Amino acid sequence: MKSTFGKNLTVSLFGESHGPAIGVVIDGLAPGIPLDLAHIRRQLDLRRAGGEISTARQEGDEFEILSGFFNDHTTGTPLTIMIKNSQTRSKDYEKTKNLLRPGHADYTAFIKYGGWQDYRGGGHFSGRLTAPIVAAGAICEQILAAHGVIIGTHLAECAGIADAPLPTAETELQQTLQAVNARQFAVIDDQKGEEMRQAILAAKQNLDSVGGVLETAVCGLPAGIGEPFFNSVESVLAHLIFSVPAVKGLEFGAGFGFARMRGSAANDPLRMDGDKIITTSNHNGGINGGITNGMPIIFRTAIKPTPSIYQPQRTVDFAARQDATLQIEGRHDPAIIHRARPVLDAMTALALTELFIEARGTAWQTTLD
Amino acid sequence: MKSTFGKNLTVSLFGESHGPAIGVVIDGLAPGIPLDLAHIRRQLDLRRAGGEISTARQEGDEFEILSGFFNDHTTGTPLTIMIKNSQTRSKDYEKTKNLLRPGHADYTAFIKYGGWQDYRGGGHFSGRLTAPIVAAGAICEQILAAHGVIIGTHLAECAGIADAPLPTAETELQQTLQAVNARQFAVIDDQKGEEMRQAILAAKQNLDSVGGVLETAVCGLPAGIGEPFFNSVESVLAHLIFSVPAVKGLEFGAGFGFARMRGSAANDPLRMDGDKIITTSNHNGGINGGITNGMPIIFRTAIKPTPSIYQPQRTVDFAARQDATLQIEGRHDPAIIHRARPVLDAMTALALTELFIEARGTAWQTTLD
Amino acid sequence: MKSTFGKNLTVSLFGESHGPAIGVVIDGLAPGIPLDLAHIRRQLDLRRAGGEISTARQEGDEFEILSGFFNDHTTGTPLTIMIKNSQTRSKDYEKTKNLLRPGHADYTAFIKYGGWQDYRGGGHFSGRLTAPIVAAGAICEQILAAHGVIIGTHLAECAGIADAPLPTAETELQQTLQAVNARQFAVIDDQKGEEMRQAILAAKQNLDSVGGVLETAVCGLPAGIGEPFFNSVESVLAHLIFSVPAVKGLEFGAGFGFARMRGSAANDPLRMDGDKIITTSNHNGGINGGITNGMPIIFRTAIKPTPSIYQPQRTVDFAARQDATLQIEGRHDPAIIHRARPVLDAMTALALTELFIEARGTAWQTTLD
Amino acid sequence: MKSTFGKNLTVSLFGESHGPAIGVVIDGLAPGIPLDLAHIRRQLDLRRAGGEISTARQEGDEFEILSGFFNDHTTGTPLTIMIKNSQTRSKDYEKTKNLLRPGHADYTAFIKYGGWQDYRGGGHFSGRLTAPIVAAGAICEQILAAHGVIIGTHLAECAGIADAPLPTAETELQQTLQAVNARQFAVIDDQKGEEMRQAILAAKQNLDSVGGVLETAVCGLPAGIGEPFFNSVESVLAHLIFSVPAVKGLEFGAGFGFARMRGSAANDPLRMDGDKIITTSNHNGGINGGITNGMPIIFRTAIKPTPSIYQPQRTVDFAARQDATLQIEGRHDPAIIHRARPVLDAMTALALTELFIEARGTAWQTTLD
Repeated sequence: MKSTFGKNLTVSLFGESHGPAIGVVIDGLAPGIPLDLAHIRRQLDLRRAGGEISTARQEGDEFEILSGFFNDHTTGTPLTIMIKNSQTRSKDYEKTKNLLRPGHADYTAFIKYGGWQDYRGGGHFSGRLTAPIVAAGAICEQILAAHGVIIGTHLAECAGIADAPLPTAETELQQTLQAVNARQFAVIDDQKGEEMRQAILAAKQNLDSVGGVLETAVCGLPAGIGEPFFNSVESVLAHLIFSVPAVKGLEFGAGFGFARMRGSAANDPLRMDGDKIITTSNHNGGINGGITNGMPIIFRTAIKPTPSIYQPQRTVDFAARQDATLQIEGRHDPAIIHRARPVLDAMTALALTELFIEARGTAWQTTLD
Repeated sequence: MKSTFGKNLTVSLFGESHGPAIGVVIDGLAPGIPLDLAHIRRQLDLRRAGGEISTARQEGDEFEILSGFFNDHTTGTPLTIMIKNSQTRSKDYEKTKNLLRPGHADYTAFIKYGGWQDYRGGGHFSGRLTAPIVAAGAICEQILAAHGVIIGTHLAECAGIADAPLPTAETELQQTLQAVNARQFAVIDDQKGEEMRQAILAAKQNLDSVGGVLETAVCGLPAGIGEPFFNSVESVLAHLIFSVPAVKGLEFGAGFGFARMRGSAANDPLRMDGDKIITTSNHNGGINGGITNGMPIIFRTAIKPTPSIYQPQRTVDFAARQDATLQIEGRHDPAIIHRARPVLDAMTALALTELFIEARGTAWQTTLD
Repeated sequence: MKSTFGKNLTVSLFGESHGPAIGVVIDGLAPGIPLDLAHIRRQLDLRRAGGEISTARQEGDEFEILSGFFNDHTTGTPLTIMIKNSQTRSKDYEKTKNLLRPGHADYTAFIKYGGWQDYRGGGHFSGRLTAPIVAAGAICEQILAAHGVIIGTHLAECAGIADAPLPTAETELQQTLQAVNARQFAVIDDQKGEEMRQAILAAKQNLDSVGGVLETAVCGLPAGIGEPFFNSVESVLAHLIFSVPAVKGLEFGAGFGFARMRGSAANDPLRMDGDKIITTSNHNGGINGGITNGMPIIFRTAIKPTPSIYQPQRTVDFAARQDATLQIEGRHDPAIIHRARPVLDAMTALALTELFIEARGTAWQTTLD
Repeated sequence: MKSTFGKNLTVSLFGESHGPAIGVVIDGLAPGIPLDLAHIRRQLDLRRAGGEISTARQEGDEFEILSGFFNDHTTGTPLTIMIKNSQTRSKDYEKTKNLLRPGHADYTAFIKYGGWQDYRGGGHFSGRLTAPIVAAGAICEQILAAHGVIIGTHLAECAGIADAPLPTAETELQQTLQAVNARQFAVIDDQKGEEMRQAILAAKQNLDSVGGVLETAVCGLPAGIGEPFFNSVESVLAHLIFSVPAVKGLEFGAGFGFARMRGSAANDPLRMDGDKIITTSNHNGGINGGITNGMPIIFRTAIKPTPSIYQPQRTVDFAARQDATLQIEGRHDPAIIHRARPVLDAMTALALTELFIEARGTAWQTTLD
């Protein structure tokens, strides 16, 4: 199961950047889920390139549902989403196909696939493959939202500029997530967002790129979701999030900050809040022993700078087996962090749906609490 | 598959801290692997409590191999390791069973299992369950070592005290890993190790505990191991590492440091080194596009302070549904980071063996390169 | 994993009879396999309706490869085959949608999917879904053939008329399989084939349908493929073969004949044949302890008569909850056994490829023995 | 996943006939299931050798529950059952270890495991491994019984002697199953049972063995359990049943009898029975389109004669690579069909529990309908 994930909600990802189409089969959806196709459309738009801080490749990303959808509802059989590739300028890649792009999967793909891989635009390794993931995630986001679970991600940091922090109180947090979700450029503080944009443009003018940190929060979760050990909430989320190209770090709650805390400060004390049990702090990011405790899940993801930059780079010609200089052409982003944001939302939604079904069964998807 | 992991090397973990036994079934080992039981023994000893910086519970951790092992070699059928529980002082837990220990899985287990869980000593959530994982990992470490793959972990930081950094050159790195692996307390710089120990003892005297950061390196890997997207090296390692209790963060290579780098600095240039293709830096931690590139894998793991501390803590009585104060008794560690170290080595070995078999087949385990 | 099968070669089946498209994603193919698309085409043609003994619905079954195929070879990433539905006459089904067709999945689908299923033409339960399976199997047949493994299926019995038996000697068996594989109507004895055809037409004139028995043989297998217990060759073959609509029985080697044999007659004696170990009889159908023994695999599959018949049938109106009479319209086959034949070949090829990869690794697919 | 089965209820089987212990880990049981250990004990007794028609090896088959069981209920974490091997007379096997027993897995195991397998008593391939399966199945039988689902198996045929048929009416069928389940030798007609026993003894006196047919019925199932295609009820049952050593054939409902039926006779007409929809015949054995239709599941399993017979047999010496004669010693059964009977019940219970959880979630196990 190389490009397949999930036991309860099995997601099979397929396609290459410059092949006929990319897509995903989702096996495990309950019958009778009404789907808002506009939400899928909207999440795909967030992921799509757009504006001067993004690549000039403008795919329409029109998706088609090939199966599992009938009379505006899921049927309960595998739902397939296909997105045709149209704006492929494959010849951009022909002349440099043996010049391994630093920071990309070119070298590792050559070794793994022995040269048989579709190298055009990164092939199966292209960030473009995240489009069907966003579409699949957008279905799960609707299922979760019907149960009151809200996911949101903001650019906590980009090019060294920090956004305002997420509020800690759940009601405020939920409002902030909704506000952030409504924005094209996902920041809490618009002024900081503008500074980030300027920093991205500055990097672009230097033929360079920037990285950052995304912070994701999930509100409205009940306690008791997740499994001990190998299918902890952290494990399943991490599995999916580290499958997003460019993600190189992940921390839950206080994360690396725990290293310098003492247990007396790190432990989240419990108390009654009416008839509900809550914790008075949330250093553990809503998860204890791999299982949700009813507090918001909070995690931060490190996104590396786009490896495709327009500066000349030292590399190797794989066929000639000799050192070479690469001058990348094609269409690339000076930052991908804002485009990675709906991908993280999608991966989070896929992971949580998988774990909810594990805990509550397939029928949970269409069950009112 | 709640407590089961792996497609090629399926690991089924079982047991509770105070039940008859804990153990693991490993399905997928090739026939004919000679096992050095002393290495398993040694890794279990590293994980076991010991000395004044650890808990007073001293399990012998004598393991028995129930199946899959005949004439000193694996048979190719499931290998089962059982460790009996002997030093169980279950009554320590009876009187506080409804007092939810902050930072532990007590509350989440109550919700998930409805009170049917074996609550004694954390039950299935106990850190004790990492013992069979260490044993299983110690088998994989031997398989990997026979292919020249060496794994090592040091305490990069504990209680705010940083160890010396790992060297970057692979030969020196390998020597450092071997030196670290030979030590009971896994530091590169003994002076720093002594400071860490003092800091742990100081925390203990304050009835408190400390956290830290473990850094793991893997040398000797070929390029081409790992799968795109859902089974990237990062994904599989993260899945297993986040299943270790107390792990709350993970970063590969430059990790969160990428956030403030530009692409021109973050990309690892490639060059020929004789007839081998290498990168001149290793910010990506040996992994591109989810696949090994032949450079060492480097990752850092955040370990939270032991949640069991002897200070009174505010909590909730689950049965009475009211606020309460918890005074933990029993036997606990003021730090678990040094005990988590062989667990990380084991998880790393399990993840890499899974991915090697995926790439090269079951027979790889006993194949000479 | 409802419509997904396989650990090493994961096959995700999708689509409904009257939806936009049906198809399959195959994850686990090695890179560099040259594909003969004409063989896929040919197997699809065998499965397609044709002639007076088949349904009047004539789908072109033009397949498109959406991913995983580049420069005439597999890339090693998921290969997706899509077949668009064109000849859909959905209105045939509207007026009878609540009249449960006896012998079909109508009632069970209503219960399982709560009415959300695409009921047109049987939806996801349609025999039409076997087309992508045939295509996927035709890829595996090529991989197996490159290793000397030949699969063939004949109509051992149809409407009570028995075909000539398969020869027992492997060389003759192989020739017979090749001869049978070259025929549109898969019989060894043409005279018997003609009798079967007449019997099918006679049933058709009676507005009725017939069943039969398919016999499949596999030549050229090495010993040692298959796993003990849960992944025995019989288990994996049976899992796939019983997923073919209309299959209701399966027996290996002497099968139900074993019931009346004594051990002294049933056991297959072993002997040396040059430097090879063979058995002098093959009652076990090439499998001992779930693992191939190097003799041909032989199994027989019971195919029930097509449930769609033009006679009035007693049934229930699901919506009205009352007894009713059903007069089926639409386009149906008086026999499906000849169309099931390439489906059995495909399922056999999928099962064996799965088990070969388990035993020998992914690279086996492109390895010369 | 070689000796591991199940997605929702994952069963890991381990052990060798003459190793320290055999056992099973069951991952996926809900918390809070009260277990009647006496039922497990009783099913193990049915499987155990006993009396003059069985082997002289008399294992006590005392089982221990190592994990997942606390205060007389399941905990919801993996439940491990271990059965120690005690009556091992391993030296019986030493002198004949290279003499391949016809009809056994000796040759295939040698090839697959390269000689590293534990050959004593068949090792992992021993029928003894069915003991932990019976124990695991006996847990599932209790879960199913609490939902009104009753499984029973009788010796439909042994040594050519047929038992009385199962009644078709569900009430009578259920009574018959309960009566059969209460018997040590599972026949409906005692007279026929006595004839079977005499035939077994006659075969024993001839140093031979006999086979037969087991027929299993399942009453009390709701409609809607099972998945389309790859996880049809037939597929999952067949997967498990063909993993039982000695099973070589399986048919559902009319099975191979369908081959000679016409559709008009084979289709099961539907009608209202009060407010319930039933079929007036049950040729499909309770399954349509892979999903239960609420009628009893009926299937028949062909059991081959015990391959271990005391007559001299022609075989090969694997080490010497030459023809040889084998005179089996050790302790063996002249028939295993009566001992296979609780194994089939167990496999049926495991398969149905897996499918029930798929359809209804883990919590179904402790849910009252």
